[in-house]
Amino acid sequence: MERHFEADLQALRERLLTMGSLAETMIHKSVSALVRRAEPLVQEVLAHEEEMDLLCIEIDDRCFTLLALQQPMASDLRFLVAAIKINSDLERIADQAVSIALRGRSLITQPEVKPLIDIPRMAQLAQEMVRKSLDAFVRRDAELARAVIDSDDAVDSLRDQVFRELLTYMMADTATIPRALALILVSRNLERIADHATNIAEDVIYIVRGEDVRERGDKELRKGLRVRPRGG
Amino acid sequence: MERHFEADLQALRERLLTMGSLAETMIHKSVSALVRRAEPLVQEVLAHEEEMDLLCIEIDDRCFTLLALQQPMASDLRFLVAAIKINSDLERIADQAVSIALRGRSLITQPEVKPLIDIPRMAQLAQEMVRKSLDAFVRRDAELARAVIDSDDAVDSLRDQVFRELLTYMMADTATIPRALALILVSRNLERIADHATNIAEDVIYIVRGEDVRERGDKELRKGLRVRPRGG
Repeated sequence: MERHFEADLQALRERLLTMGSLAETMIHKSVSALVRRAEPLVQEVLAHEEEMDLLCIEIDDRCFTLLALQQPMASDLRFLVAAIKINSDLERIADQAVSIALRGRSLITQPEVKPLIDIPRMAQLAQEMVRKSLDAFVRRDAELARAVIDSDDAVDSLRDQVFRELLTYMMADTATIPRALALILVSRNLERIADHATNIAEDVIYIVRGEDVRERGDKELRKGLRVRPRGG
Repeated sequence: MERHFEADLQALRERLLTMGSLAETMIHKSVSALVRRAEPLVQEVLAHEEEMDLLCIEIDDRCFTLLALQQPMASDLRFLVAAIKINSDLERIADQAVSIALRGRSLITQPEVKPLIDIPRMAQLAQEMVRKSLDAFVRRDAELARAVIDSDDAVDSLRDQVFRELLTYMMADTATIPRALALILVSRNLERIADHATNIAEDVIYIVRGEDVRERGDKELRKGLRVRPRGG
């Protein structure tokens, strides 16, 4: 029974990694669709979304079954609760990638506002945050999780840069407003992806430390970790 | 033991309702701060955020303890898993209200772009969706949950209306662009609040039906329910 349970947990871990890697692919393809103005990539992202939905349901079921049948204690229970949350964050990351792909599709038929530099950079950062947060989860590596949380600031500062730059384009030429707005919203989608990766990293710290990092007694740490989404 | 467990579940239910009602208050105050240009309301929202964080930690702890000590089966387990997710959705709703309040603060010192009509209407709808989703949760009312999911469309169509209208202001007078953008982002915050309420409603249906509504065998229902956030 015990060994069977271990194998089930390992299988769950692997499915979450598969889901994380699919989420990364979706981020990459959705931004490439925008940058390279490639409709086929939009379609690939939409196809991935269906795989993602099935994975999400499968993982929820696995977690539920393990909770119900195995009645795990302490650290395994913490792991399963975190897995449920991580599953939901990964699904929402995929939703954001779909949103980017659809905005990309609407921009493909229109002239470029400007060559895109900061948005692909944001996407790369966000993608790395997703990968590292999942690596941290699998290795139970609190340091790596903390690094993910720290990199959220870099994403936010790129978001502000994108905003300021596009604002000048909009002010200079009102014809660019609708397209520039779409790009601003893409940068917000990427910001949200980074926020979800941050949530995952917080869950990892929760598993590893065996206590909620948001706990009252630990104000300093909590303050450092309080990087939840403020923007939209 | 059994009766004690029932009492614990009831206490958990009540704490989630308290949290839901605080979330509603925050939505209302954040948009009022914007509409009435009232800095004190911004401060109230920020103060509520701290209460919210404490509630969120308390509820997570309650869920975890009940999962660990009581080893609940079937429907209680589903209830607890849903409670964990709802707790996280409510916390994120509060984050969105804080974001609205902060954007409101930045707008207070500047001239109005236009009298706000659709944004308060969106806020009211989003607030009702939060209330109804929590009511549905407490009463295990799948019909009410379904009504919440249906009203998400009305929020999305208001979001589009806000967008189109503000776009015309921006095109007509570039000086309004930064302020109009802030208002567009407020409408996105409200959209996200409605999306979280929709997630809660989906969880309610999951509890009531005793099966995941996203299940493959039930494509029709799933399609009807697939109203997850696409935008941002």
